Amino acid sequence: MVYRTLKFNLLNRSFKCRKLTIMATVQAGKAEKASKTKLQFALKTPKGTKDWADKDMIIREKIFSNLSSVFKRHGATTLDTPVFELRDILAGKYGEDSKLIYNLEDQGGELCSLRYDLTVPFARFVAMNNIQSIKRYHIAKVYRRDQPAMTKGRMREFYQCDIDIAGNYESMIPDAECFSIIVEGFTSLGIKDYKIKLNHRKILDGIFQIAGVKDEDVRKISSAVDKLDKAPWEAVKKEMVVEKGQTEATADRIGEYVKLNGSIQEVHAILSQDSNITSNERAKEGLDELATFIKYVEALEIDSYISFDLSLARGLDYYTGIIFEVVTEASAPPQDAEELKKKSKSTEDASEYVGVGSIAAGGRYDNLVNMFAEATGKKSSQIPCVGFSFGIERIFSLIKQRVEKAAAIRPTATKVYVMAFGGGKDWTGYLPERMKVAKQLWNAGIETEYVYKSKANPRKQFDAADKCGCPLAVILGKEEYLENKLRVKKLGPEFADDDGDLIDAEDLIPVVKQKLAEIYEDGADEVTKLFQGL
Amino acid sequence: MVYRTLKFNLLNRSFKCRKLTIMATVQAGKAEKASKTKLQFALKTPKGTKDWADKDMIIREKIFSNLSSVFKRHGATTLDTPVFELRDILAGKYGEDSKLIYNLEDQGGELCSLRYDLTVPFARFVAMNNIQSIKRYHIAKVYRRDQPAMTKGRMREFYQCDIDIAGNYESMIPDAECFSIIVEGFTSLGIKDYKIKLNHRKILDGIFQIAGVKDEDVRKISSAVDKLDKAPWEAVKKEMVVEKGQTEATADRIGEYVKLNGSIQEVHAILSQDSNITSNERAKEGLDELATFIKYVEALEIDSYISFDLSLARGLDYYTGIIFEVVTEASAPPQDAEELKKKSKSTEDASEYVGVGSIAAGGRYDNLVNMFAEATGKKSSQIPCVGFSFGIERIFSLIKQRVEKAAAIRPTATKVYVMAFGGGKDWTGYLPERMKVAKQLWNAGIETEYVYKSKANPRKQFDAADKCGCPLAVILGKEEYLENKLRVKKLGPEFADDDGDLIDAEDLIPVVKQKLAEIYEDGADEVTKLFQGL
Repeated sequence: MVYRTLKFNLLNRSFKCRKLTIMATVQAGKAEKASKTKLQFALKTPKGTKDWADKDMIIREKIFSNLSSVFKRHGATTLDTPVFELRDILAGKYGEDSKLIYNLEDQGGELCSLRYDLTVPFARFVAMNNIQSIKRYHIAKVYRRDQPAMTKGRMREFYQCDIDIAGNYESMIPDAECFSIIVEGFTSLGIKDYKIKLNHRKILDGIFQIAGVKDEDVRKISSAVDKLDKAPWEAVKKEMVVEKGQTEATADRIGEYVKLNGSIQEVHAILSQDSNITSNERAKEGLDELATFIKYVEALEIDSYISFDLSLARGLDYYTGIIFEVVTEASAPPQDAEELKKKSKSTEDASEYVGVGSIAAGGRYDNLVNMFAEATGKKSSQIPCVGFSFGIERIFSLIKQRVEKAAAIRPTATKVYVMAFGGGKDWTGYLPERMKVAKQLWNAGIETEYVYKSKANPRKQFDAADKCGCPLAVILGKEEYLENKLRVKKLGPEFADDDGDLIDAEDLIPVVKQKLAEIYEDGADEVTKLFQGL
Repeated sequence: MVYRTLKFNLLNRSFKCRKLTIMATVQAGKAEKASKTKLQFALKTPKGTKDWADKDMIIREKIFSNLSSVFKRHGATTLDTPVFELRDILAGKYGEDSKLIYNLEDQGGELCSLRYDLTVPFARFVAMNNIQSIKRYHIAKVYRRDQPAMTKGRMREFYQCDIDIAGNYESMIPDAECFSIIVEGFTSLGIKDYKIKLNHRKILDGIFQIAGVKDEDVRKISSAVDKLDKAPWEAVKKEMVVEKGQTEATADRIGEYVKLNGSIQEVHAILSQDSNITSNERAKEGLDELATFIKYVEALEIDSYISFDLSLARGLDYYTGIIFEVVTEASAPPQDAEELKKKSKSTEDASEYVGVGSIAAGGRYDNLVNMFAEATGKKSSQIPCVGFSFGIERIFSLIKQRVEKAAAIRPTATKVYVMAFGGGKDWTGYLPERMKVAKQLWNAGIETEYVYKSKANPRKQFDAADKCGCPLAVILGKEEYLENKLRVKKLGPEFADDDGDLIDAEDLIPVVKQKLAEIYEDGADEVTKLFQGL
């Protein structure tokens, strides 16, 4: 590309205004004044949000990359949607939780809200583009104006890590693959002690019918049942009878069923022998689907992870088939949660008295895409979907709780520190020379730093390398460099007495690569080792 | 973990309510009804935003990973801040552009806004945590309620990819490293035809003083000058005189300087011989800093990329030292922009008459961290910063414009398709068997898919593999599988007549790995090759 180069003979030009007011700090001074007249405010992130930095980021990025690999392994493509959606898109999807949606201010133009999950934007995308089948994953932040419990990974801004399979396929094949992805995902993170709680909306709806719940009450009774992981049966029963107008008898009949849980084969067998269930068309459909599902999860050898739990209901409106949640010991609230809540001094954060909650959750939703297509007046075929979300912050909080070893993780990847040693009156510090050497290493893709000083003594340079855990130094000796020689030295206490090797400058890159290969012999990075050792 | 397994003898229980209303579609039916009573709405993403999917995501993720590698190569750590900040944090940072900030609705609690860039949240983080030095990168979305030009990569929601170096260091060392990172970054993306336009706020302020601009007018005259890349000098002069109250003489004097550009050494030499400049204390400071800067960029061998351009002003309030923008041929608007604008039918999108704009930009801002520290009443030492942002969407639009080859990119990573061939009355289709084989491959980390059907004919299975560009098939033959044999076959027209190898089932993983190594002999993935070939 050609740039116009206009040269002016400035020396020969006469300026009408020669009077110069000397002000040393026009810009700096103005900024200072502005800030002093401003009201003071708290320097913090908004409630329920936080900054992620340093080693936490290294761990979190590793979680993302491991899960992405698992998703790609199953042939998924990735999608990115805007952080806000038109408000109409989110309306009527989240039941009682809709009040937790963040709205954008009306500044003229469209009314928008921050996304509440990644499922609704996905269904919007599928409907909008008339997609017939897709397997997609999406790792992104979602927003809920909920009571935060920061140390338990329950936040107002948090990551979800979703995979969904959309398309008209034979029953339960994609559902079983989702369960395989759950198991592979947690395996890749070194998490072993978990159960996948499973239920089926059709069976649950059948039970409500059998118990005498009216159609129009089904969803609100379902959301009462959903509280059973946090509240005792008595409290849930009271909600059904007192708040939600069911008879005692109805509540008790629901109670008998929802207490049922165990291995998927056992509970399936029990329900299959219950004539109330088998004679309810909807429940029977669910049972038949689960019979197929059992065959597939047995083939995939993941049935032992599953606990069929009739108390699982899931709050969201849009599920139509299997629903599931992955729980671990830390998921439940502490035994004395009620007491802890009363004692808690913080009204801002519930960490003291809540559990981590589920660490992954999802289900089948066969009508959501269709709802969008219909709402726009298009006639469209149904696109059934199944999928789930890994709860990244909660998983992170589990990993963080377990590892003390995290201290071994380096926040930077720096492999080589370029130093210069010299002295005497004529010693320049070799800064441009260090830059030249660093540039060679950068161009070879090697992570390299040097001290940002013209002259730095050896101690300062070793300290800087030490601080970032850098394993190798390339040293420019005052005389040696003039003879086109560089010194390559391993760092760390075990090499304190080792002066390193004096090499020809032109051999720099192969020598450094060789030394680094020796240092990182086993190939695995620190975080991978950390996950493997969990 | 132990789960309570409660078994109920359901058969022996008596239910009071035996009457069952059979309703096949409680859930499905309700969802349908709800959507039908709802008003119809447009199925779209909000103005200025878009979904990213398929091959575009593959290219964009590769851009992210290449730039992250460059950042890490320079010892940077990564940071993630919330997508919204307290409104006070953003106030007074963006000059005339503050009107483009998205606010969140006041739903009780704190007043928040979506971030406008990544620099202000970074400075807030540094001040809040009293950090003395940090080199951090941050890849995340920012939000501006601006006129979009979607095909030019100018959007309301867009990614920035920032690196900043904060800390009290010797003058211009971090600044020069930023320029090295720019060059390495674009090299990693195969982008060669660009110039880094450079200016210095102190020199620009000095020129304004020399020309007779009052202190309080400096920023608004600066933002007029900043329009010179889009508007002719006459229009900018008119803005200065008519709208911004400067004399003709002042405007003309500014005009003589801001037309000046060329190599950094040339323009520096010209200014150094201009006694008006050298006798202005502020401009002289800037010149001296640039003399040091020239020494370093020469050592780094990147001076040839730089065009010292006195018309570069940058709109943001917070810059205090060098400022720079990376431009390429596509950055400028079309020659007949004004005419095209008049002709344009779209009021929603400016793509027809604007350019891509700068593809990276940044500068030094030595007072921003301090402003935050002071605003909270803390006394703090100054933390000088320098940094810049790669404009991802604009870079993406450049790459996208140039490559027709993108067709060669596969949206999925699938390496192996597991198939079953058989027939006859007793043929089951081997679905659970295919699942078992896929599971082995998944556990070995190999990307694998199979058709979601109990029985599928060979044609359908080959078509599915072909559709995702999968290079290898593992085939379960009806008889062969019973003898513990699997067939491994390369796919693609060149192997049409090749029946593949019949192997022992237990050798599956090593054989597949060997075949994949043969197929991906040269190691580089499609996108890397694409970037290299640009």
